[in-house]
Order: sequence, then C-alpha cells, then structure tokens
Amino acid sequence: MRRPIRSLLYWRFRERPFADLGRRGVCDAAMRLVQFCRRGKEGAVRVGVELEAGHGVVDLKDFDSSLPHTMREFLEMGDRGMEQAHRALASGRCVVALSDVRLLPPVTAPEKVVCVGMNYRDHCLEQNAPIPKEPIIFSKFPSAITGPYDDIILPDESKEVDWEVELAFVIGRKGKHIKEEEALSYVAGFTVANDVSARDWQMRRNGKQWLLGKTFDSFCPLGPALVTTAAVKDPHSLGIRCRVNGDTVQESNTNQMIFRTEAVVSWVSQFVTLCPGDVFLTGTPPGVGVFRNPPVFLKKGDVVECEIDEIGVIRNAVI
Amino acid sequence: MRRPIRSLLYWRFRERPFADLGRRGVCDAAMRLVQFCRRGKEGAVRVGVELEAGHGVVDLKDFDSSLPHTMREFLEMGDRGMEQAHRALASGRCVVALSDVRLLPPVTAPEKVVCVGMNYRDHCLEQNAPIPKEPIIFSKFPSAITGPYDDIILPDESKEVDWEVELAFVIGRKGKHIKEEEALSYVAGFTVANDVSARDWQMRRNGKQWLLGKTFDSFCPLGPALVTTAAVKDPHSLGIRCRVNGDTVQESNTNQMIFRTEAVVSWVSQFVTLCPGDVFLTGTPPGVGVFRNPPVFLKKGDVVECEIDEIGVIRNAVI
Repeated sequence: MRRPIRSLLYWRFRERPFADLGRRGVCDAAMRLVQFCRRGKEGAVRVGVELEAGHGVVDLKDFDSSLPHTMREFLEMGDRGMEQAHRALASGRCVVALSDVRLLPPVTAPEKVVCVGMNYRDHCLEQNAPIPKEPIIFSKFPSAITGPYDDIILPDESKEVDWEVELAFVIGRKGKHIKEEEALSYVAGFTVANDVSARDWQMRRNGKQWLLGKTFDSFCPLGPALVTTAAVKDPHSLGIRCRVNGDTVQESNTNQMIFRTEAVVSWVSQFVTLCPGDVFLTGTPPGVGVFRNPPVFLKKGDVVECEIDEIGVIRNAVI
Repeated sequence: MRRPIRSLLYWRFRERPFADLGRRGVCDAAMRLVQFCRRGKEGAVRVGVELEAGHGVVDLKDFDSSLPHTMREFLEMGDRGMEQAHRALASGRCVVALSDVRLLPPVTAPEKVVCVGMNYRDHCLEQNAPIPKEPIIFSKFPSAITGPYDDIILPDESKEVDWEVELAFVIGRKGKHIKEEEALSYVAGFTVANDVSARDWQMRRNGKQWLLGKTFDSFCPLGPALVTTAAVKDPHSLGIRCRVNGDTVQESNTNQMIFRTEAVVSWVSQFVTLCPGDVFLTGTPPGVGVFRNPPVFLKKGDVVECEIDEIGVIRNAVI
C-alpha cells in the first residue's frame, strides 16, 4: 500500500523544491500533521504525519529521536522540521496503525488562541448585525483546547451552551506587523475547530466581555489534523458544516468569510508578536443555536460534528 | 553579611515546618523568587531567590542542577521546589551579585494572564460606574509580559496609552472549582503589574471587547519578584501607587479591592482549570490618565513606576 502514497507525496513536493523553502515560508510540503499518543501510553505525546486515510500515522520521534514531542516545538523548528517530517513520510517507516493511535488536538499549549467574531456575511445577516469594518478579536485560554474526538463538558454554570464550526489555522513562524501579501507564509496549516460558547456568559454576564463564555474547559475541540497550507487548494472556498445528532445545523462555505486568513494574520500582528503554534479561529457561519426560534442549546448525550472539506471532521460528545 | 539573613529566614520558616507543608499549600516559606539572567548571558533564564535588599540572588540551578530553568516549571514542582529553594537560600552559596543580574519578569509564558476589571471601589467612583456584583474578567496574551525594568513600547496604532498599577498574583498548583476558604493555598505569591491599556482600542474599537487594547507587546510589565504568600502579611492591606515622571498619579490601598484574591481564584476556577504559573492582575485604583480632566496619556520618554508596599517597585520607560 505504500508505493502510491510515496509517489503522490514526492510529486507534490517536487513542485516546490527544498532550495526554495526559505523564501516561500514554513511549509511547502502537503502533509497532514497530528499529535497523538499510542493507546496504553496516554501520557506520551508524539508528533506524527498521517498516511492516506486509514493507513496509519508515521511517528516522527521514532524516525528521528532528535525531533520534539509536541507540535508547538516541532513548528518552532521551521523548515527543518517540515523537511524531516516529509522525509519520514516518504520513508514508509515508523508507521503506527490507526487502531493503536489516539488522536490529540493537533496543537496544545499555544501561547495564544485568537478568535474572530462576526466574520461570516451570512452569520451577520442571521442576527441582523452590520458587516464589521474591522475584525472583532477575542480569545480563549489554551486550557479550553480538547481533542478531535474528546467530550465537551457541559458546565453546571451555563444553561446555554452552543456550537460554532470554524476554520482554524496555526502560525508556523514568528512575526510582527506582517503584510497581507506575506501573511500566508506565516501559516503552517489549517484545521477544524468548534468554538463552543456559553451564550448566557458571553452575551449577558461578565460586563459583556466574551472571554468567560468562550473559555470553559473543553470549549475548543480541535483537529483532526493540521493540514499544511500547501495541501489546501483554496482555504477560502471550502464547504463548512456542523451536525448535531446527525442533523445539519450549519452549512456554508468559507467564501463567506469577511476577513480572510491573510487579513486576520496581518491585523492581529499589528498588536502582538505571533509565534509558532498560535491558533486562530476564523469565525462561524449561520445556524448557531442561540439565533434559532426557539433557541436550541446543547444537552448531555448530544453529538456535535464539525466538518470542513479537505480538512476533516471532528466529533465530540456532550457530557 | 550572610548571618542575619539566614537567621531571619530560618526563624520565619520554623513557624511553618516542612511536615506541615502538604496541608497548607504550595508555599509556606517567606521568599522573594525571581527570574533572571546573568549579564552577558542574556539567553539563559534562571530562577533565583533574592537575598535581602542589595545582597544578590541565589542561582537555584547552580545550587541544584536538577532544578528547572523557568519559574513556571519551578512552580510545577510544588512543595519540593519551594523546599529546595529555601535550602539554597539558607546555604548562603551560589550567590550572584546584583551588578551581574538582569531581572526578567518573575513568570514568563504562563498559560493564562487573567485580569479583573473595575475591582477597586474608589476606581468605580472615579468613573461614576456602579460597584460590580460579579468580577469582570478579561485577559492579555502572555506575549504582553515584559520585565520589571524593561521598556513599554508605544505602538503607532494607539494615541491613548494609559497606566494601571495592579497587585498581581501567581498560581502555584493546579485546581478547578476551588473554594474561597482554600483559595490562598493555590497562590504561590504576589507581584506588581502595570496593566498598560490603549484606551482607544479598549473603549471604542474591536466591538468593545477589551482584549486588543490590553495586549499590545510590552503592555504587561511584571515584577520585580514573586513574593511568596507566606512573606506577605496581608495582601489586602497594602499601599499601592503609581508615579509618572516622579509625580504620584495613583495612590490607594489594596483594601479597596471589591473581589479579593480568594474570591477571584474561586470565581475564575468555576470556568477554567488553573495551573502553576497562571498570572492574575487584580484591578487598578483611581488616577488613570483617561479619567483625568483633560485626559493624560503616556508619551515617549515618560517613566512609569508602579509600587506596592512589601512587594516592590517596577520602573518602565516609555519608548
């Protein structure tokens, strides 16, 4: 089974040879990077590269023991890490079977989880809100991040927990005052997020500062993989949808985004230095529970699936 | 010079013997912990303990090479780290002269920088705002943290950068749903912060979400030391003041705090798991620039000093 995968990857990579990597940015190899642990070794975080669907994960630490344990440290290595990951994938060695893999969030413990509010035209229309002229930026604490198939913990403190499927991206190299034209070269890749939101706390409590309603533990499911920028044809033309218990509740396209990846990177980097591992959530399309009539909120036993074409699907039970 | 310092510290420590440490919390030794680097070795972060004013800093890594490089890792060790730090201090060995020390922020790269807004009675009166019934929680990104004597970088993007002296505390052990009665045992110690704020971005831009105005790079000077909880007689009865170019602009007492340390720890831990190194800023007293008539903002060349009795003073030039 290895041969077709290897040749596919070599082909993609040859288009953008090593020598050109420095000028182009952090990630010119098409790969699906993950964090995982082996079943039975739940404490040992590893960085891996997915083989094509179902064929397992290459364990980077097994391939090269000098590579780091976590995605954040791996991204801090820049091109050298990416090149080595690509070699590992091409080697066909150090493959862990999917049955032996528990996927973790593709990034944990980032310095920042940056979120954009009101960033889909159709989501603004849904709530009769004007289209923002500047991005609205808020945040979650990194402690909110949970895995692609982990549980969303319904807190006793909220009666209005809602879903929000979002395209997320992860920063691959350090930068400040980044120009829009160069912004994509600072992005390591894309992933899927659920910006779980306690509407009571977001909208009516805490002096209307959104933070608390957005940052309960487990309120940021993320994954399943960090899909490198080179592997996504056009991040702003992807079907995006959310299902609750199998019913489609959000269905849109990332072409509805008001401020796209490049604009968001450039905007936020006016304020803060971005660094490898920083996670950005780019806003949600219409169909959230709070704007339904009557409003609908998550309850114990629900299963939420967030899906973006070419990136993947995360599935989280509500407990 | 060493003898009186050692005997003072032994005396303080004997009141709260080792055997009792587990039940009491993370930090029963009275110490002033710092992060520092030696001049000429700017990349090498060290954790240290201050000797009495002017007598230098004990380098913990020199004393015990198994101790970690950063305060966050040191705090993650819990009692064992604290006990070893106290032994190092008592040994009189591994002292670095102050002239050879550059103080860094006492904590860097925390998972969270949690801030409380509108938390001084007299600050609420200053702006004719009602006394909040619940804490108002917002955040900065960890990238905003800078050292006790580092520069505050005035960004081109704001014309309204203001000062806010605040009592800060740092979490010493992991916890969720912490009761007020037990909250202080989760606090490793106290330090001084300047919650530098771009009022234009905080109050009128970004959909009135405060984050951006609060989190420009360098907008969280912190230090000079993490003063352990046992070393502060009563954190809610301390003179607190801010001077700009030598003129006192804020002058109050931490007894004006509406939600005290215990209440803030307990409140925030309803939402998120707290972990060692998390930094909390507890709000500012009156005298900020934006509520002056006419308003006053920081300009290049200004020097801001934030001081809290028993904790210390930080001094940051505006560039």
